[in-house]
Amino acid sequence: MIQKVEDSKFSNSLFPNSRRVYLKGVSHDISVPMREITLSDTKLPDGTAEKNEPIRVYDTSGPWGDSGFHGDVQKGLPKLRHDWIKARGDVEPIVGRDVKPGDNGFLSTRHDEKSRERSQELPDFDRSQVSVLRGKPCAPVTQLHYARKGIITPEMEFVAIRENMKLQTLSEALQSSPEEPSNSLKHQHLGNSYGAAIPAEITPVFVRDEIARGRAIIPANINHPELEPMAIGRNFLVKINANIGNSAVASSIEEEVEKMRWATKWGTDTLMDLSTGKNIHRTREWILRNCPVPVGTVPIYQALEKVGGKPEDLTWEIFRDTLIEQAEQGVDYFTIHAGVLLRYVPMTRHRMTGIVSRGGSIMAKWCLSHHKENFLYERWDDICDIMAAYDVSFSIGDGLRPGSIADANDQAQFAELKTQGELTTRAWEKGVQVMNEGPGHVPMHMIKENMEKQLDWCHEAPFYTLGPLTTDIAPGYDHITSGIGAAMIGWYGCAMLCYVTPKEHLGLPDRQDVREGVITYKLAAHAADLAKGHPGAQYRDNALSKARFEFRWEDQFNISLDPEKAKEFHDQTLPQENAKTAHFCSMCGPHFCSMKITEDVRKFADELGLDNESEAIDAGMAKKAKEFLDSGAEIYTAHSSNQ
Amino acid sequence: MIQKVEDSKFSNSLFPNSRRVYLKGVSHDISVPMREITLSDTKLPDGTAEKNEPIRVYDTSGPWGDSGFHGDVQKGLPKLRHDWIKARGDVEPIVGRDVKPGDNGFLSTRHDEKSRERSQELPDFDRSQVSVLRGKPCAPVTQLHYARKGIITPEMEFVAIRENMKLQTLSEALQSSPEEPSNSLKHQHLGNSYGAAIPAEITPVFVRDEIARGRAIIPANINHPELEPMAIGRNFLVKINANIGNSAVASSIEEEVEKMRWATKWGTDTLMDLSTGKNIHRTREWILRNCPVPVGTVPIYQALEKVGGKPEDLTWEIFRDTLIEQAEQGVDYFTIHAGVLLRYVPMTRHRMTGIVSRGGSIMAKWCLSHHKENFLYERWDDICDIMAAYDVSFSIGDGLRPGSIADANDQAQFAELKTQGELTTRAWEKGVQVMNEGPGHVPMHMIKENMEKQLDWCHEAPFYTLGPLTTDIAPGYDHITSGIGAAMIGWYGCAMLCYVTPKEHLGLPDRQDVREGVITYKLAAHAADLAKGHPGAQYRDNALSKARFEFRWEDQFNISLDPEKAKEFHDQTLPQENAKTAHFCSMCGPHFCSMKITEDVRKFADELGLDNESEAIDAGMAKKAKEFLDSGAEIYTAHSSNQ
Repeated sequence: MIQKVEDSKFSNSLFPNSRRVYLKGVSHDISVPMREITLSDTKLPDGTAEKNEPIRVYDTSGPWGDSGFHGDVQKGLPKLRHDWIKARGDVEPIVGRDVKPGDNGFLSTRHDEKSRERSQELPDFDRSQVSVLRGKPCAPVTQLHYARKGIITPEMEFVAIRENMKLQTLSEALQSSPEEPSNSLKHQHLGNSYGAAIPAEITPVFVRDEIARGRAIIPANINHPELEPMAIGRNFLVKINANIGNSAVASSIEEEVEKMRWATKWGTDTLMDLSTGKNIHRTREWILRNCPVPVGTVPIYQALEKVGGKPEDLTWEIFRDTLIEQAEQGVDYFTIHAGVLLRYVPMTRHRMTGIVSRGGSIMAKWCLSHHKENFLYERWDDICDIMAAYDVSFSIGDGLRPGSIADANDQAQFAELKTQGELTTRAWEKGVQVMNEGPGHVPMHMIKENMEKQLDWCHEAPFYTLGPLTTDIAPGYDHITSGIGAAMIGWYGCAMLCYVTPKEHLGLPDRQDVREGVITYKLAAHAADLAKGHPGAQYRDNALSKARFEFRWEDQFNISLDPEKAKEFHDQTLPQENAKTAHFCSMCGPHFCSMKITEDVRKFADELGLDNESEAIDAGMAKKAKEFLDSGAEIYTAHSSNQ
Repeated sequence: MIQKVEDSKFSNSLFPNSRRVYLKGVSHDISVPMREITLSDTKLPDGTAEKNEPIRVYDTSGPWGDSGFHGDVQKGLPKLRHDWIKARGDVEPIVGRDVKPGDNGFLSTRHDEKSRERSQELPDFDRSQVSVLRGKPCAPVTQLHYARKGIITPEMEFVAIRENMKLQTLSEALQSSPEEPSNSLKHQHLGNSYGAAIPAEITPVFVRDEIARGRAIIPANINHPELEPMAIGRNFLVKINANIGNSAVASSIEEEVEKMRWATKWGTDTLMDLSTGKNIHRTREWILRNCPVPVGTVPIYQALEKVGGKPEDLTWEIFRDTLIEQAEQGVDYFTIHAGVLLRYVPMTRHRMTGIVSRGGSIMAKWCLSHHKENFLYERWDDICDIMAAYDVSFSIGDGLRPGSIADANDQAQFAELKTQGELTTRAWEKGVQVMNEGPGHVPMHMIKENMEKQLDWCHEAPFYTLGPLTTDIAPGYDHITSGIGAAMIGWYGCAMLCYVTPKEHLGLPDRQDVREGVITYKLAAHAADLAKGHPGAQYRDNALSKARFEFRWEDQFNISLDPEKAKEFHDQTLPQENAKTAHFCSMCGPHFCSMKITEDVRKFADELGLDNESEAIDAGMAKKAKEFLDSGAEIYTAHSSNQ
C-alpha cells in the first residue's frame, strides 16, 4: 500500500523577517544561499529614524528554507551538483548494487513486504530518475585530489562565498555610510586562534589550499548531488553535527525525513544517520534525496544488523558490501573504527566505564572473539579505494573514547589517536579526505591536550568531537555539560562539534530535544568562532546587541539563533503587542530600566562635550572633581556617621 | 486580615534515596549538614552482589531539607548561630531602627494597610522573638577581624567540615575495604588550578588563614543567625548565587519565600533579593528568617524606591538609612557600586550597549545630574563602619560591566576594576570582608584577562561574576552561553558564579527557569572544581559513572544534580518499571548496547589474563599479532577488492 507524504507534515515554517538570497560565483555559475534578516529602523532621540542594514546569516536549510521553492519530498531536492560532477569527466554511471532484503533488516522480500503492509510504512523512494555514479579507474574523484592538482572546483568556490557572507554584507554597509565605520568593524575583537590562521577574507584559492593540505574537507559524495557544499576545517567557521536515527523502537520514514528538515532548519551543518533495526536502507534513501547537508553514517551498524546483531559474525565481505551500498546511495562520510587495535582493547580493562562507543565495542568484541587484529585496520587500503571512487570522506572513529571523567586522556584513548594519525596518512596517500573523531568525557583542564595531540599526531586533519562533556553528574543537562567542552575545544581548533541533546544517557531525543541540542551547539560553535577571531562571526553579536540596546525587541528576536523561543519567553512576561516596541524591558518595569538610564547618560555626556578620549576626560574631570570637593565637602560633612 | 501560610504550598519534596546526616565538629559543638545518598548493590557477573557505599553531597537546603525537621515558616528557622555570636561577647542588643511605611514603598501607614487589605497579602513577620544586634564600638565583629586575631570561629570550623565531606566519606570507604583503593581515588585527575592552592584536606586553620588573607569570606551577618556558614574563595568549592525578587509586576510574599526554598533545594549557595516596588522590607524579612544561606541585596534599589525612582534625588542620608535598615534585618552582603566614578562615565559614551548594570546606571545618572563624584565612593569609610558593626560583607559592584561582546574588557570596565581594588584595600583596613563583582558579556579568549587583572588589582579578594556570556546571539539560551563562561572563569579562579536563567534579557524567570538556571550553574561550578583539582569534586562523577556503567539506573538518577529530570527523561522513552533495572539502555535496545558488549570484553580480557600493564600487553599481543598474520592473510587475501 502506497501512502502519499503530505507536505503539511514537514517543518516549512520559515524564520521571521527573513528571506532567502543567493550570491553568485565569479569563476563558476553557482548561487550560494543565505538568509537575510530585515531590521527595523533605530528611533533616534530627536525623533528621526536611522536605517539598519539587513544582515545575512549562514543557512543550512537548503531549498526547504526558500519560500520560493515548492519541492516535493517524493521527488527529492534538485540535483544542484549534477552538472559540476559530470563536467569533470571522471565519473561513469554504473548499474549499481541490487538492494537486498537484508539491507532493510529482512530475511526475504516477502518478510519485507509483509512487514510494510502491517505497519503501513512508506514505499521505497522512486529511483527512476536517479543514476549511480562511480569514479573511473585510475584516479580518485575527491575534492582532495582536485585540490592537489590545483583545481578550484565549484564546490570550493561555493564554500568560499558561504564562509564570507559577512564581508559581503559589510562592504555594502560601508558603501552606504563611508564616513563612519560601522559598529561591527569598530568593535571587532581579535581572537586567539591557537595557531590557526584564518584570513580576513576566505578566497577560493584559500579553500583549495586548505583542502590540498588536508586541513579541511568538503564532504560531498558524487551520488549526493543534492548537497550544498560546506567545509570542515579549523580555519573555517566551526561546524556542528546532529544525529538522527530510528532505534529498536520503531519510527516511521516520514518522521525521519522530518527530523532531518527540522535539524537543518535550526542550523545543523551535517547530519549523521545512526539508524539501527529495520528499514535502514529505505530510511537513508529518503533522507539523502531530500537532504541539503552532508550525511554521515557508521556503516558497521548496518553491517551488524545483517549478521543478526552478533559482532563476532561480522566479516570483511559483509562490511565491504555495506560500504558500497551506502557509497552508491550517496552517504558523504563514514565513521570507521579502524583504530581499535587488538592490543589496545585490554588497556580498557580497568577503566571506570570501559568502552562506550558502539562501534568501538563491536570491533573490540570482534577482535577478542577471533583473537585477530581489527579487520577494518587490516583492510584499510581496500576501504580507501572504495571511498576514493565516490568521494566519501573518512571520519576515523574513536572507539576507545573515554565514557567518564575518570577515563579521560588515558592510555587506551591516546593509543588509538596515534593509530588514527597513521590511518590519516594512509588515506591521504589514496587521495581520500579525512577527519578524526574525538572524545567524549573530558574535564576542562584536559581538553587542550586532546586538541594538541590530535593536531600533532594526525597532521592537522580536521578534528570532530562529541562534546566533550566536562562533568558526569548532570544527566538531563548533558547538552550543557558538553556545550562547555565543545565551545572550548572549538576555540582550541576543533573543526566540527557533534551535538549532544538533553536526553543523552537517558533516552531518545524528541523534536524539542533536537532543537535544544542544535541551538546549544550553534551557540557553542559561535562562541568558538568569536574566540578564534573568525572575521565572519562578531557582526551578528553586534547587530543583536545594538537591537537590544535600542529596544528593538523584534529585531533582537529575529537576529537570535531561535527567534521563536526568544519571542515566546518575552511574551510569557509581557504578552501585549505594544511591549515589543516599549522602551523598557519586563525585568525592571517602566520606571527602572538601566538601558533607559543609559540613554540619559549619553545625552548628558554629549551636552558636556565629553568623549572617550581618556586625556580629555581626565582633564575635564580634574576640574569637575575640584568643584565637587569644594562644594561636596560642605554638603556632606555635617551628616557624617560612623554607625 | 491575617492569612496563615499553609506549609503544603512550599517545596518540601526531598531527594530520592537521600537522608540528612550531620557531622560533628571537633573544637566546637557544631553539626554540619550533608545529604547522604544510598546506593544499590552492584550485581557481579557471577551472581553475587557488591556493596556500594552511600555518598555524601553538599547540601544547601538547610533544615527544610531534613525530613526530621517540622518547622513553621511563620516562626522562621532555628537560630543556629545565636549562641556562637553571643559567646564572642562583642555584640549588644539595640532597639533598632523603626520600620517606616517608605521601607515598603508606601507614603504612609494608612496607604500600607489599605493596600494590604485590598490585595490580601501576608502580615509582617512576627519579630517578638527577634532582637537586633550590633557590634560594640571599638572593634569590628567580622570573621575577617577574628581570623586576623588568630581565632577559629565555629563558622570557620563549620565551613572546613562542609568543604571536606568527600574526605569523610572516603576515609570510611577505605576503612571498609582497605586492600583495594576505591575507584574514586584511583581515577582522580589532578587539576590545573592556575595558581590557586587547594590543600588535600581543608582544615579550620586553613579556612581561618584564607579569611585573614582576604582570599575568602564567610558572609554571615550577626542578625542572620539562621544561616549555615559557607565560604566564598578560590581555594574552596566554587559557589553559585541565584537571584530572586519581585518586580513592578506584583508577586506575593508567600511566593517569594517559596522561591527561596526552591532555589536552595536545587543547590544555590547564596541568594540575592533584588526586589523592587512595594513590600521590599516585608518580603526580605520573611526570606531572611527562613533562609539557611547568605542573602545579598543591592541597597541602592530600595533607596531608589524611597525617592520615587529618581536617581538624582538619592542622598547619602537615604542610602545610609537603608544600609542600617537592611543590616539590622540580617542581610549578609551588599552590592555597592562605589567604583562608578564620575570620570569613568563618559568612557561608556561610544559603547555598543552603554551601561547595563542597574546600579551602575543609577550612580552614573546621579553623578552626571549633580556633576559630582559618586557619593558611595566619597562615603566609603562611613559605609565600611556600618558593615563592620554587623559583619555585612561587601560585594563591590561592577556598574560598568560590559553588556555585549563588543564592549568586553574596555577602558570603562577596567578603570572601575582598578577602583574596586582600591576600595577593597580600604574595606580590609576597616576589617570588612570583601568580594568583587565581575562581568558580564565576554568572549572566551578575553575571560582569562578578567580573572588575572582582578587577582592582581584586587589583591586576591574573591571574584564573583555574572556568567560571563560568551556570545550575544542566543537569547532564550543565555543560561548556556553564560554557563560556558562561568565554568571557564571558575576554573581560572573565580570564587562565585551568579546564575543566569533562560529568561535573561527577555522576561521574569518562573520556577522552572530558576531550577534550570541553578542546575546549569551547579554543573558549571562542578566542572570548574574538577578542572581546579578540588579533592572534594570528582568522587561524585565517579560514583555516577560507575552506576551508569553497571546499569544501576536509579542510582544514576539519584546521584545526579537533578534526579527528577533524569528519571522523567528516562521514563519518556522506557516508562516500564523493569527498564530501571534492565541491562541495556533505551538508546540502543536490548541487542545493541556498547556497555553490555564491554562487559563481555572484560570477561574476555580476564580469561586471556591480560592486564593494563602496557609491556605485558605488548609482549602478549606481539605473539597474537603474529598468529593473526599467519592465518589472517590466508583468510582475507582471496576476497580482496579494490572497488
